[in-house]
Amino acid sequence: MDSDRLKKQIEFIVEIDKIKQVFRQTLLMDGSRHENDAEHSWHLAMMAMLLSEYTNEKVDVCHVIKMVMVHDIVEIDAGDTFVYDEKGYLDKSDREKKAADRIFNILPDDQAKEIRALWEEFEERKTPDAKYASALDRIQPILHNYYTKGHSWKEHGVKSYQVLERNKIVSEIAPELWKFINEILEDSIKKGYIER
Amino acid sequence: MDSDRLKKQIEFIVEIDKIKQVFRQTLLMDGSRHENDAEHSWHLAMMAMLLSEYTNEKVDVCHVIKMVMVHDIVEIDAGDTFVYDEKGYLDKSDREKKAADRIFNILPDDQAKEIRALWEEFEERKTPDAKYASALDRIQPILHNYYTKGHSWKEHGVKSYQVLERNKIVSEIAPELWKFINEILEDSIKKGYIER
Repeated sequence: MDSDRLKKQIEFIVEIDKIKQVFRQTLLMDGSRHENDAEHSWHLAMMAMLLSEYTNEKVDVCHVIKMVMVHDIVEIDAGDTFVYDEKGYLDKSDREKKAADRIFNILPDDQAKEIRALWEEFEERKTPDAKYASALDRIQPILHNYYTKGHSWKEHGVKSYQVLERNKIVSEIAPELWKFINEILEDSIKKGYIER
Repeated sequence: MDSDRLKKQIEFIVEIDKIKQVFRQTLLMDGSRHENDAEHSWHLAMMAMLLSEYTNEKVDVCHVIKMVMVHDIVEIDAGDTFVYDEKGYLDKSDREKKAADRIFNILPDDQAKEIRALWEEFEERKTPDAKYASALDRIQPILHNYYTKGHSWKEHGVKSYQVLERNKIVSEIAPELWKFINEILEDSIKKGYIER
């Protein structure tokens, strides 16, 4: 056994436990508390498995699952940036790049490169796989908001047109899910969860 | 769009949010609180990606990831059964089978079958993929116990020989990880985290 290699792998596995303490703006669907990044990533991976039939380009579900699993690891150092926080977005990319340099490089070189490539592909949102992963990352908090009567929309004064604007990538890769999101938003307006 | 199909898929995605409230015996590695099943499943999926080189039989990492992602969903109804709880294990299988019948069948038939097959393969622990998934499911709480100075071992009076007995599957599928577990346990005995 190359014990130095295993040591690095275990060190990384221990390090990423911290993602369970990175809390997001969204509440669990029962409204009891904020969701963390580990839970969010698991939920996206399940969605990736179940909704791939709706993409209009061929996607590699396994690759998408890996991408959503690693996409938020940088937030261990960089923190969660709320998707409607325009100020937070200004230096998000710098903060996250630094985090990636530190955290991914705990791994042996080959695996550090593999995880980093997955994260970069996700961030660039260019490949069909990355677009699908990104679409899921947008749809999931909409569901959470809908089931918590618009909790984080209300808290941050987010409007329906902003949600649609921020979630256009869903229309690009999965028009039927885009239609579904529009229905959810219309119903949310009707129920007073969000303003138009 | 077959909207009845999408409706079922979304209903399942909403239902499994509850797994974020199924708490395990193990604490997070920083000792701050108990870990839940969503976090645990995400962590196993990451480990599946990173440790497959140590298996002595060929495994399909993607299939293993899917298996660990779904392996605890039945606990939404059946609850978490502590691995050293012999009484709880008596009716575990019945409780979990009932849960599988209810929860998986929220999905459209084809997907219900797919998820159920993954869960059953995991439970049977016969294929190399299932053995590897099961080994990860055993190794991860050992790491959590080690980093929390034996918290749930002490709480339940678990001894080192019991851990080894319960984790033999690791020796079958990944002898080098088995060697690593033995080292961790020896160190835990030395540090007073567990009794021999």
